[in-house]
Amino acid sequence: MSAISDGQIWLWEIIGTAVLILLGAGVVAGNNLVKSGFHNSGGLFINFGWGLAVFAGASIAWQSGAHLNPAVTLGLAIADKTPWSQVPIYICAQMIGAFIGAMLCYAAYKKNFDADPHPEDTRGIFCTGPQVKNYFWNTVTEVIGTFVLVFWILRSPAISQNGGTLDLGNSGLGYAGVAFVVLVIGNSLGGPTGYAINPARDLAPRIAYALMPIKGKGSLEWNYAWVPVVGPIIGGALAGGLFLLTQNV
Amino acid sequence: MSAISDGQIWLWEIIGTAVLILLGAGVVAGNNLVKSGFHNSGGLFINFGWGLAVFAGASIAWQSGAHLNPAVTLGLAIADKTPWSQVPIYICAQMIGAFIGAMLCYAAYKKNFDADPHPEDTRGIFCTGPQVKNYFWNTVTEVIGTFVLVFWILRSPAISQNGGTLDLGNSGLGYAGVAFVVLVIGNSLGGPTGYAINPARDLAPRIAYALMPIKGKGSLEWNYAWVPVVGPIIGGALAGGLFLLTQNV
Amino acid sequence: MSAISDGQIWLWEIIGTAVLILLGAGVVAGNNLVKSGFHNSGGLFINFGWGLAVFAGASIAWQSGAHLNPAVTLGLAIADKTPWSQVPIYICAQMIGAFIGAMLCYAAYKKNFDADPHPEDTRGIFCTGPQVKNYFWNTVTEVIGTFVLVFWILRSPAISQNGGTLDLGNSGLGYAGVAFVVLVIGNSLGGPTGYAINPARDLAPRIAYALMPIKGKGSLEWNYAWVPVVGPIIGGALAGGLFLLTQNV
Amino acid sequence: MSAISDGQIWLWEIIGTAVLILLGAGVVAGNNLVKSGFHNSGGLFINFGWGLAVFAGASIAWQSGAHLNPAVTLGLAIADKTPWSQVPIYICAQMIGAFIGAMLCYAAYKKNFDADPHPEDTRGIFCTGPQVKNYFWNTVTEVIGTFVLVFWILRSPAISQNGGTLDLGNSGLGYAGVAFVVLVIGNSLGGPTGYAINPARDLAPRIAYALMPIKGKGSLEWNYAWVPVVGPIIGGALAGGLFLLTQNV
Repeated sequence: MSAISDGQIWLWEIIGTAVLILLGAGVVAGNNLVKSGFHNSGGLFINFGWGLAVFAGASIAWQSGAHLNPAVTLGLAIADKTPWSQVPIYICAQMIGAFIGAMLCYAAYKKNFDADPHPEDTRGIFCTGPQVKNYFWNTVTEVIGTFVLVFWILRSPAISQNGGTLDLGNSGLGYAGVAFVVLVIGNSLGGPTGYAINPARDLAPRIAYALMPIKGKGSLEWNYAWVPVVGPIIGGALAGGLFLLTQNV
Repeated sequence: MSAISDGQIWLWEIIGTAVLILLGAGVVAGNNLVKSGFHNSGGLFINFGWGLAVFAGASIAWQSGAHLNPAVTLGLAIADKTPWSQVPIYICAQMIGAFIGAMLCYAAYKKNFDADPHPEDTRGIFCTGPQVKNYFWNTVTEVIGTFVLVFWILRSPAISQNGGTLDLGNSGLGYAGVAFVVLVIGNSLGGPTGYAINPARDLAPRIAYALMPIKGKGSLEWNYAWVPVVGPIIGGALAGGLFLLTQNV
Repeated sequence: MSAISDGQIWLWEIIGTAVLILLGAGVVAGNNLVKSGFHNSGGLFINFGWGLAVFAGASIAWQSGAHLNPAVTLGLAIADKTPWSQVPIYICAQMIGAFIGAMLCYAAYKKNFDADPHPEDTRGIFCTGPQVKNYFWNTVTEVIGTFVLVFWILRSPAISQNGGTLDLGNSGLGYAGVAFVVLVIGNSLGGPTGYAINPARDLAPRIAYALMPIKGKGSLEWNYAWVPVVGPIIGGALAGGLFLLTQNV
Repeated sequence: MSAISDGQIWLWEIIGTAVLILLGAGVVAGNNLVKSGFHNSGGLFINFGWGLAVFAGASIAWQSGAHLNPAVTLGLAIADKTPWSQVPIYICAQMIGAFIGAMLCYAAYKKNFDADPHPEDTRGIFCTGPQVKNYFWNTVTEVIGTFVLVFWILRSPAISQNGGTLDLGNSGLGYAGVAFVVLVIGNSLGGPTGYAINPARDLAPRIAYALMPIKGKGSLEWNYAWVPVVGPIIGGALAGGLFLLTQNV
């Protein structure tokens, strides 16, 4: 069990998740907004952005264990690597950080949002949506994607060998390993629903988007908003459970 | 000789190969299916997917040595790094895992398969095929690709210095090195036949595809199915043999 | 406090920054010039170029701490990791190196510049410009991007644990970590202004471009030139300040 | 001074350079041949191929120091890190290996060459050529690119700290660092001449191409063939010289 203080969780999960969402929402803004220098740069461009956004945010937030994701926190708690008493702190901090990150992304692209000819299409910069809408199967996709992420984190030798906190002395890749896994989940499982795989990554920026003064902005799609929350929670829980079942093999 | 138990092989080769095929087939689904958010993302997108699918699967399966590929198991056995008695266990577990992974990929993309206007073209998501069909030369291509993969694994300093099991304390890259090699084999030798370089990666998902309830799906091309089995077996055996011949130089 | 000599700073900051700008300007030349083998290779191609330009330059310049950027030097000085007395040496050396690098890029692409049908569009190879011009918001974008870079450098475990000089024994990634962060800043925050995030990277090549004998070359846009200087200085200072405030949490 | 035997040089430089050219020529074949599954995958696809071809070849050839390039051998000899008496062995082995690699690439793509509608354009798969032909400036470009490669190798902390042989215990990235540098040289300096930066990489495959039974193949451009030999030799020598001059700063 790691000895991470509540103050460390508050500070570093807020900052780390803010950096994650600033860069993650930023790469979609850079690709989607018409008045961006990297308009239409494509799928690999976007997924490198999200993968390395995790790398940047997690490297900054190593003192809190760099969860940055309620589904990761839940999986680690089930696997007995994070105290249940700190789970609410992690999740609140992640939600606050994700909200701040979305607002910073809006600031960085302020004039590009203003000049965009299709403001009704900008919601996808901040939160995910399905290509073919179906609550059950969209949830299945998010469960599978999040399961891969959280089970990888629990099983990765560098991380699993020291109680859930990455020991950098043991791992040459450090948080680049997590970045590679997020990148491949994006390429491989992002096609159907946009791979939220993180409740805070989807819900808090959706709330932030609701508050942004973008003229003519699109629908918030609140009826879908529970899928990228519930799917990742189930996926993270399944990963924690399978880890417990298999850890002695 | 590593001391890996049969139970570890069963469990981790099944899970690791399932993750490999889930993500590997997934990236082709994400690229090929019309109703995918990453439709037509291109060759580098696909090959990063397969390369990092190996990274993800292998990191999870490190306790079984992370073969995930009968050609790797064969090469390691010939090189005297895996006991011959465990070879059948490895191969059975890899086939089962690959079958499960293909089915999970189908589940993740269920509605995108349902909505695809060209179901007759979906076989390529699960198994490989040649651009110019010629049994002899297609086999040659698979032999060369698999030889590079298995000889690299046997010669890589981090792996070869400790009996075939990756010692993470000795290797900063960990399984990212294997991912890079799979990526470059894809870019460089994938053009002619789609780089199966792994009998389980091709045969088990082909069987799974035969069983999937996809309306109007394409031919299984069983007449070609032996090439991506035989080619990789020859390539893995040649790599093991050359390793034995050169290991004292 | 590191014990880096003035001579090491002069030599290695000049050479390292020259390599950074040679490769960074080079990737834009390779993408933008019509008579280049890699014309129109796209955003990820460009951002990999800049990210790995930092990797190459920094690996060469490790003996000076590999700042290569006045905003990094300023952030490290505020964070008490570089002596204030050496700050002017760093900045002068970086400016000289960036000038040399821009000239070497011109030499490498000499005939491609000569043959380019649109010489009026070549300024963007050497210095940045906004998609939507607005001094305040363009500065905000540069502040945010530079803040992420410098705060990451200060917080990164491998760097922060040893006084600002990267200890390669502690870090498997070495300077690849910085390269990944520059890449993601490019993908995610480069859309609005082209991510100078480095005063020397923008100002010295702009001066060099003014001196290059390119017939029909474009305007130097001196009225914008202060933004990619002031923005990064503010961003680097904010990162140094936040590091001081949070280093004991 | 490393204690590498002549036999190790012969064996591993041949095999390592063969893998380098098999994968390097292969990625251009995969991109250029019309009947390739990865036709027209673009500049980043190609440069990742060449970069990781170096990674694969070098990881296999670590026992010979993994030069794989006469310009690297020359630079190391000038820098007093490789005995001059072994230089001819390195270069002969590299030429033989590059020839074998080119032939293996032809075998892997045999039917795709046969089916290609433009055999007159296939020379570029095996050897480089300029976008704008000018012997002096094309040589300058090759000098600059090779200088960056060889000076990076000499200065890279993991390599320079132990006499020219990569010590994997000291370097988390291992040969991935060299791969990143080759990738960025490709992106950034490959536009004018195709970045040979290695005499063996260009000359031996050109000879191999002359011998390949490709109907209607293109001109060998022997009048240009000296540029990618002389340029890299000068660049490697300059890097070795500058290393000697600066090694005590």
